Amino acid sequence: MAKKIADYKDYVGETIKAFDEGRVLLVSHGKEGLPNVMAIGWGTVGIIWRKPMFVVLVRPSRHTYKLIEETGEFTVNIVTPQLKEVVQYCGTVSGRDHNKFKEKQLTAIPSKKVKTPIIKECILHFECRVVYKNDLIPSELEKSIIPALYPKGDFHLVYFGEILACQYES
Amino acid sequence: MAKKIADYKDYVGETIKAFDEGRVLLVSHGKEGLPNVMAIGWGTVGIIWRKPMFVVLVRPSRHTYKLIEETGEFTVNIVTPQLKEVVQYCGTVSGRDHNKFKEKQLTAIPSKKVKTPIIKECILHFECRVVYKNDLIPSELEKSIIPALYPKGDFHLVYFGEILACQYES
Repeated sequence: MAKKIADYKDYVGETIKAFDEGRVLLVSHGKEGLPNVMAIGWGTVGIIWRKPMFVVLVRPSRHTYKLIEETGEFTVNIVTPQLKEVVQYCGTVSGRDHNKFKEKQLTAIPSKKVKTPIIKECILHFECRVVYKNDLIPSELEKSIIPALYPKGDFHLVYFGEILACQYES
Repeated sequence: MAKKIADYKDYVGETIKAFDEGRVLLVSHGKEGLPNVMAIGWGTVGIIWRKPMFVVLVRPSRHTYKLIEETGEFTVNIVTPQLKEVVQYCGTVSGRDHNKFKEKQLTAIPSKKVKTPIIKECILHFECRVVYKNDLIPSELEKSIIPALYPKGDFHLVYFGEILACQYES
């Protein structure tokens, strides 16, 4: 078992399926260097501005938001089906008062291209640098989305992250 | 040869590779019903707001922009490598004064879920309904992107299209 540099295009389908299955973690780290991990259920992958791009949404109320704002980086990490419980746990507690890496015995290891680490126990990794961000504009959202997903008005920020490296555990 | 309903997740990788190879066409049609086709080089695919999503960028100066604004729909169509020349042509002339369907002998056929047609001669199709859009905010773009891609300040609008159907030609 070793991580190998991969062409992100070969793993886009697997990544979208992992979203469907609740197997996606986003890692950020602030200026102080301690990494934090959150569960993400949404994202898109492709090409924008001639760059490979991973688009993620983060609510400004999240601890992750503060960390990404400090460094302009994040990594996306896919877990095996056996580790879905870890993703569920990461979706229920905040990095403000939990060290989720420690609690779930996750290992932060160095990335190839960004300072934010990847998670050793995961099988697919995208290292991203924010090249654009945009607050969601509530008035432009289809009306049915708001009561279902934003009952408290806590609208996401959309981060466009250039994919600088992709690794797969073979 | 027949078009079959497919799971979009099985064709995301192929779609991103098609962007790289200049094989992606976007079809729109206005209130008057005449379809128009443009070449697109950028886009992302995934899940947002619990919906399958195709994100595309269109400059407001384009004829396509006017048409999508009228209907809130578009289809994305992938050509075979043999038809790359058609995409190149569609990237050089405007639907304002060219009927590109007719000039390139493309056939508009009915979609499954939207009124905007798909292109018979293509091999992979995504039918999309706009659920969100956002003007690019130049001040949030990484500085190096602007002189390279927006020397005239003609910034894109970002359309988030829910994928209502995906068809593949087997």
